Amino acid sequence: MTPQSVGFVQPQRMQFDEPLPLRSGAQLRQYELHYETYGQLNAERSNAILVCHALNASHHVAGVYEGQEKSEGWWDNLIGPGKPLDTNQFFVIGINNLGSCFGSTGPMHANPATGQVYGADFPVVTVQDWVDAQARLLDRLGIGQLAAVLGGSLGGMQALDWSLRYPERMRHCIAIATAPSLSAQNIAFNEVARRAIITDPDFHGGHFYAHGVVPKRGLRVARMIGHITYLSDDVMEQKFGRQMRAAELGYSTQDIEFQIESYLRHQGDKFSEYFDANTYLLITRALDYFDPAREHGGDLSRTFAQARCKYLLASFTTDWRFSPARSREIVKALLDNKLDVSYAEIDAPHGHDAFLLEDPRYHGVLRAYFQRIAGELA
Amino acid sequence: MTPQSVGFVQPQRMQFDEPLPLRSGAQLRQYELHYETYGQLNAERSNAILVCHALNASHHVAGVYEGQEKSEGWWDNLIGPGKPLDTNQFFVIGINNLGSCFGSTGPMHANPATGQVYGADFPVVTVQDWVDAQARLLDRLGIGQLAAVLGGSLGGMQALDWSLRYPERMRHCIAIATAPSLSAQNIAFNEVARRAIITDPDFHGGHFYAHGVVPKRGLRVARMIGHITYLSDDVMEQKFGRQMRAAELGYSTQDIEFQIESYLRHQGDKFSEYFDANTYLLITRALDYFDPAREHGGDLSRTFAQARCKYLLASFTTDWRFSPARSREIVKALLDNKLDVSYAEIDAPHGHDAFLLEDPRYHGVLRAYFQRIAGELA
Repeated sequence: MTPQSVGFVQPQRMQFDEPLPLRSGAQLRQYELHYETYGQLNAERSNAILVCHALNASHHVAGVYEGQEKSEGWWDNLIGPGKPLDTNQFFVIGINNLGSCFGSTGPMHANPATGQVYGADFPVVTVQDWVDAQARLLDRLGIGQLAAVLGGSLGGMQALDWSLRYPERMRHCIAIATAPSLSAQNIAFNEVARRAIITDPDFHGGHFYAHGVVPKRGLRVARMIGHITYLSDDVMEQKFGRQMRAAELGYSTQDIEFQIESYLRHQGDKFSEYFDANTYLLITRALDYFDPAREHGGDLSRTFAQARCKYLLASFTTDWRFSPARSREIVKALLDNKLDVSYAEIDAPHGHDAFLLEDPRYHGVLRAYFQRIAGELA
Repeated sequence: MTPQSVGFVQPQRMQFDEPLPLRSGAQLRQYELHYETYGQLNAERSNAILVCHALNASHHVAGVYEGQEKSEGWWDNLIGPGKPLDTNQFFVIGINNLGSCFGSTGPMHANPATGQVYGADFPVVTVQDWVDAQARLLDRLGIGQLAAVLGGSLGGMQALDWSLRYPERMRHCIAIATAPSLSAQNIAFNEVARRAIITDPDFHGGHFYAHGVVPKRGLRVARMIGHITYLSDDVMEQKFGRQMRAAELGYSTQDIEFQIESYLRHQGDKFSEYFDANTYLLITRALDYFDPAREHGGDLSRTFAQARCKYLLASFTTDWRFSPARSREIVKALLDNKLDVSYAEIDAPHGHDAFLLEDPRYHGVLRAYFQRIAGELA
C-alpha cells in the first residue's frame, strides 16, 4: 500500500429491479451495479465526486483489496488522503458500467428473461445509458447534486454527457484526454480490434461461454492494437526503440526479435486472460457512438447550450488518440456559451496513457482545481 | 488505358542457377526473377532506371496487360511517354522481389531441395538480399551502371541500400517516403499484423497450402491495420468522417455502422483473396530488419560515408508512418558527407499513400529531377 492510500476497500453492489430503458430501444429488466466509495459524505451531502471509468477499468479506482498484492485501484495515484483528489475533503464514488466484465451486470451474467448467459445478446449500451444508470445509483445513495463528475478518455465522455443531460445535478465537469466524438481513424482502430475478436473461431458469434473456450487470439490482437494507440511514438521509441532481444538477429518471422514485440505480446497475453470479448465489443461501440452534437446538426456549440456547470479540460501534447485539438473543440464550444472553463494542455511524453500517470504538472492542475471545488464547499 | 501509357506490357522471367547467399546464412539454390521493362535501352546502356517495389506490389509497375481490365501497373501515373519518368528517354525496369507472391521465387513455389512447397520454410530475405538479386538480374541484362534506382517506402530502402553497397553501379538514388530504419511504433504495427496471421488457425504454421486453406481472417486484419497507417488522420476524416451507412443507428457491435468500417472490411477482403500470408510475414520482417546504420554503431552519417551517387529524397507532411523527420535524418547524414542531395517535403494530405498518387507538386519535383538526369545523358 502506498503512503496516502485510502487503505483497504471493499466493493459494494446495488440491485435495481426497475427496468432501464436503453438508447437502442431495448431495456435491461434488472441489473446490478458495483461501486466503491472513499472518504466521507458530508452532512450537506455536497462533497461527492463521481469517477467514470474508461475501457479497461472498473469501480475499483483507489485503495487496495486486503490480501491481494498489487491490487491498487486504477487511479490510486490521484485519489487518497492528501492526494490531488483528497479523500479528507471529498466523498469519491467509483461505479462499474453496465456491460463490463468486472462486476456490474454484463454479457457474462444470466439474462433474467431466459436464464441463459447473455453473451452476444447483451444489449448495446451507450455512454448515455451508463450515465442514466449512474444517476439512479446516486439517487439510491441520496446524492442529489455532485460536486463534480471526473473521467479520462471514455470516462471523460461520460463526464461531458452528465453535464449535458443532468446539468442541475453537478457543479463541475472534469474531462481529461477526451474528445467530443471519435474520429474516423479512432473508429477504424476499434473496428480492426473488433474484427480480430469476432473472426476468431473461438468467438462462436459471442456465445463462446457455452463452448468452454475464449477467443484469446482475437483479444490479444485487439489489445496489441489498443496499446500502440495508447502510447506516443516518442515514448515507444525511448522505451524500446530498436532494442533486440538477443545480440544477433535470429532471422525469423515468427520468433521475437525486438523488445517491442515481446512487450506487446505480453500485454496481449495478460489482457486475454481476464477481459471479456463481448465487453470489449460493447465498450468500443459505446466509444464509436458517442457524439452528443449529432442531435444538434453536428454543432458542438449548440450542443453545450444546455450545459450549466463549470469545466476543467486537460489534454496531453503527445496523445494522438485523443489529441489536444479534440479537447480544444470542446473548450471552444464551452466558451461560445460563455461557460466557466479551465483548460490545461500538458506537455507530457506518454501519449494517451498520460491521463493515468503521475505527472507533476498534470497532478498540479488537478490538485488546484479540486482545491477550488473544496473552497466552494466551505 | 490512360493517355501516355506505355501500352501493353508483358512480364519476363529469368532463371538463376548459381546459389544466392542470404544475410541469414541460408541460401537460395535456384531462383527465378520476374521483371518488366518499358522504353528502350540506349546504345551507351546508360539510361536504365530500376524501380524497387514496396509491400503490396510487384514488377508490374507501368502499362497494362492485354485483355485485362484495370491492370495498370502500380506506378503507371508516373511512368510512360511524356510522364514525369519519361519512357521516351529512359529504360525502366521493374523487378519482383524474392519471397513475393507475384511471380519471383517465393513461399508458394517448390523448394528444389525437397520438391515440396516452401511455405514457412522459405528463407527470411532482407533488403540487402533483394538488392543483390536485382544486381544479378542487371548483370544478365548487361547493365553495368544505372542512371538511377527509384523506390518509395520499402522500395526507398532498397534504393538507399543500392547506393550504399553498389555505389559504382548507379548515378542517382531516388528514395521517397522512406526511413533509415523502422521506429518501435512501425515494428509494433508489423508485429500485430503478423500475430493476426500466425495465430489464425488456418495458418497451420505457414504450411496452410497443404491443408487447402488460406489464413484469410489474419490477412484481413493485417491489411486493415496496414491501411490505417497508410492514410493520414485528416484524409480519413475528410473521406469518411463519421458517415453512417444508414440514416439511423443500428445498435450492433458486429454489423457495419460507419462507412469507414465498410471501407476497411472491403480492403481486407480484397487483400485476403490475392496476397500470400507467408509473403506478408517475409516482407514485414524485411522492413523491420532494414537498418544500415546498425553496422556503424547506429551512426547514419558514418553509414553514408561509402555513398557516391546523387540523391533525391521526398517526404509528405501528413505521412505518419514514415514521417518527414525520418527523411530528414537521411538528408542530414548525406549532407554530413557533402553529398549532392535534393530534398522535397511535400504538403500533401494523403499520408503515406501519397507516394503512389498523382500530386502536381510531387510529380513536378520528380519530373524536374528526371529531366536533370536526362540532361546528363546527352
